[in-house]
Amino acid sequence: MSKKKLYIIKIGGNIIDDELNLVSFLKLFACLQGHHILVHGGGKEASRISTAMGLEPQMVDGRRVTDEKTLAVVTMVYAGLINKNIVAHLQANGCNAIGLCGADANIIVAHKRVVSGVDYGYAGDIDFINHSALEQLLQDGLTPVLAPITHNGKGQLLNTNADTIAGEVAKAMASLYDVDLVYGFEKQGVLRDVENPESIIEKIDSGTFDTMKEKSQVHAGMLPKLDNAFDASRHGVSRVMIGHALQLNEILAGTAGTIISHE
Amino acid sequence: MSKKKLYIIKIGGNIIDDELNLVSFLKLFACLQGHHILVHGGGKEASRISTAMGLEPQMVDGRRVTDEKTLAVVTMVYAGLINKNIVAHLQANGCNAIGLCGADANIIVAHKRVVSGVDYGYAGDIDFINHSALEQLLQDGLTPVLAPITHNGKGQLLNTNADTIAGEVAKAMASLYDVDLVYGFEKQGVLRDVENPESIIEKIDSGTFDTMKEKSQVHAGMLPKLDNAFDASRHGVSRVMIGHALQLNEILAGTAGTIISHE
Repeated sequence: MSKKKLYIIKIGGNIIDDELNLVSFLKLFACLQGHHILVHGGGKEASRISTAMGLEPQMVDGRRVTDEKTLAVVTMVYAGLINKNIVAHLQANGCNAIGLCGADANIIVAHKRVVSGVDYGYAGDIDFINHSALEQLLQDGLTPVLAPITHNGKGQLLNTNADTIAGEVAKAMASLYDVDLVYGFEKQGVLRDVENPESIIEKIDSGTFDTMKEKSQVHAGMLPKLDNAFDASRHGVSRVMIGHALQLNEILAGTAGTIISHE
Repeated sequence: MSKKKLYIIKIGGNIIDDELNLVSFLKLFACLQGHHILVHGGGKEASRISTAMGLEPQMVDGRRVTDEKTLAVVTMVYAGLINKNIVAHLQANGCNAIGLCGADANIIVAHKRVVSGVDYGYAGDIDFINHSALEQLLQDGLTPVLAPITHNGKGQLLNTNADTIAGEVAKAMASLYDVDLVYGFEKQGVLRDVENPESIIEKIDSGTFDTMKEKSQVHAGMLPKLDNAFDASRHGVSRVMIGHALQLNEILAGTAGTIISHE
């Protein structure tokens, strides 16, 4: 028997930061047929609130350094403010969403990143995705909405990259479902030339990716996303796509965005 | 066939504000046998964070006035920071907790309080408890942890009194379970004399409560809690108790706290 379809959609900071874009995206997401999971990042809201509270955001290589106070802010903003507003909008659009972080139902267990050079503080690297808990919620007719906060199982919350969460959840669910994974953001796909929004690469395979990396043609912000995308593609996820969140239907139809293939 | 037991425990701000008390309480809660639900309030953390962000908390008759910015703060703090830290601690103690607000799985639908005199802003009065969704999660082996944020089903989150949530959830679940409802806080029960912590009233019935109200013997902060407690007792909840959160086992054994009886 063929596996049932599961759509896992990740949306990034730039879509979340713009209320109109976010609401438009959530309408598209709510209309998806069958099982689906949403993973969201955090974006600028956490930095704005940190600053309003007198904390200065610290970034190293584009990643946030999470000290204790910053962990409190990202927990509040990601798992509280953003997550619950997304859930309320999805519910208003007839999608029976349930907002969760990795501690809820023990869905994502991680460990504090080992210090080697840069100390990222309370940053979590994923050990385990509890795919049976996610499967149970899907079977209950619910649509999980995952915030990028995990836990270590010993009472400690951890800040975890949302691209990585989306990739790991997709890999873990691939044993049970025919999984499509979409990384949605504010560009129409992976661009050949970051200055030219029309220069969308339709398909990237491993060879192309290696060449692009050698020639430093991959934008720094895109590199971890592509690494996660290839990793998911190599580990049982049927299709991995990157594109504009508001072109969700076109991306799934194969008429927009960039498709990632590990072959 | 007799109904299965369900414990619904509410903890208030003063227990949440003290990290040591909170951790001790969560250990007791995690050890409860059978189905249980935790409802938590917010307390001083939201006021502290509001102040750190330059917002001045506005209170009328002991209730927070929730303007748009305050709603963002209470959503962050209650449904994010407090809820997820509680869940992480319960998971560490072997309790498979899942943290939710009323929007999640459409568990609690409310409407914005109608303005009559005081405009409480985005304060929500409860219309409906989705007891089948809660029942499904309990059947999945999960322990719901409810933050005092609800939604109106149209995309709007609302700030809702945690005592009322606990009472309404207890009433709604009473058709399916033999429900015990405990209001846990920092005092050992309802006191005859608020200055004397030993003056615990063991049992309050409707007659006693009416007399106490007539004689203005009920502390202002205790009045809405007692109103909720009597309402639950009148509507099918087996036992309603008020006492110190750290005496949870003694309260359930009937050797501590105040028992509320509508008879």
